[in-house]
Amino acid sequence: MATTRVSVEVTVREAREDDCEGIATLIQELADYEKMPTGPKIGAETLRKDGFGPEKMFRCFVADDNANLVGYALYFFNYSTWEGVNVYLEDLYVTPSHRQQGVGVRLWKAVAKVAVERNCNRLDWVVLGWNKSSVEFYEAKGAVNLTQDEDWNLFRLTGDNLKAFALSC
Amino acid sequence: MATTRVSVEVTVREAREDDCEGIATLIQELADYEKMPTGPKIGAETLRKDGFGPEKMFRCFVADDNANLVGYALYFFNYSTWEGVNVYLEDLYVTPSHRQQGVGVRLWKAVAKVAVERNCNRLDWVVLGWNKSSVEFYEAKGAVNLTQDEDWNLFRLTGDNLKAFALSC
Repeated sequence: MATTRVSVEVTVREAREDDCEGIATLIQELADYEKMPTGPKIGAETLRKDGFGPEKMFRCFVADDNANLVGYALYFFNYSTWEGVNVYLEDLYVTPSHRQQGVGVRLWKAVAKVAVERNCNRLDWVVLGWNKSSVEFYEAKGAVNLTQDEDWNLFRLTGDNLKAFALSC
Repeated sequence: MATTRVSVEVTVREAREDDCEGIATLIQELADYEKMPTGPKIGAETLRKDGFGPEKMFRCFVADDNANLVGYALYFFNYSTWEGVNVYLEDLYVTPSHRQQGVGVRLWKAVAKVAVERNCNRLDWVVLGWNKSSVEFYEAKGAVNLTQDEDWNLFRLTGDNLKAFALSC
């Protein structure tokens, strides 16, 4: 039986509060893809509070096919003591059925435009090194791997170790 | 001629707006130490605007010996789609004359306390891999190297490449 791929119009737009259920579903899909399915500990309610409450801890673009969300790019403003305000792309994800149609580039570009409009010189993010298709996708647009080029390593203090350190004398 | 190290009381406290000149001096010292002396492009005026204006893009603790600032820890809140609000430590630096006296640990701990008080599960930062003394300092307190353990690589799109991508059709 032959299958036909139906091309559906996908809109990239700023996320609204009522997108949070859909975003939470995509966050879980991305974690599954990254082989860390138990990673996500927060859900739509926390996303609503943190993204759409009085203090905006993140911002987000979504890709919408008029029925479901099929991708998202979640970002926030970070700070460099060399260059001031910059943008950090926390997640960029497109659901498998909608890949290879330019949706990921459009989401990524929406975030890059925010950076340029705010006069930021940098857009930063992290990638799993084994994820060669993502690495190639980013490098094709001129992104550089600062871990490889300058030996930057990501460190984390977490959970009980963080508490023990913070509360030690 | 014998030299005597005079032990001076060092206070760790939240940065004030009038600390920005001193912080900018230490930012340049850190860049020199990191072998990237031309890195810093912003000065005290930008730090005042971004840290002490209506929108706080960063927060900072300083170590003060009652004459000069001798160290600083600059941080901001970042966002994880797995765990919500967390803390990112952008810079931790102590001037050479005041090292080996616990000042760096006190600054770092002040930031860790902010994270715990805000119910954050993570404190993140990056370290140059060749900087073995820093790597050991952090690992001794239970920090993990996520680049080594999970293969996370830091990517960046910057300057003309960022603009070209954002404005491309």
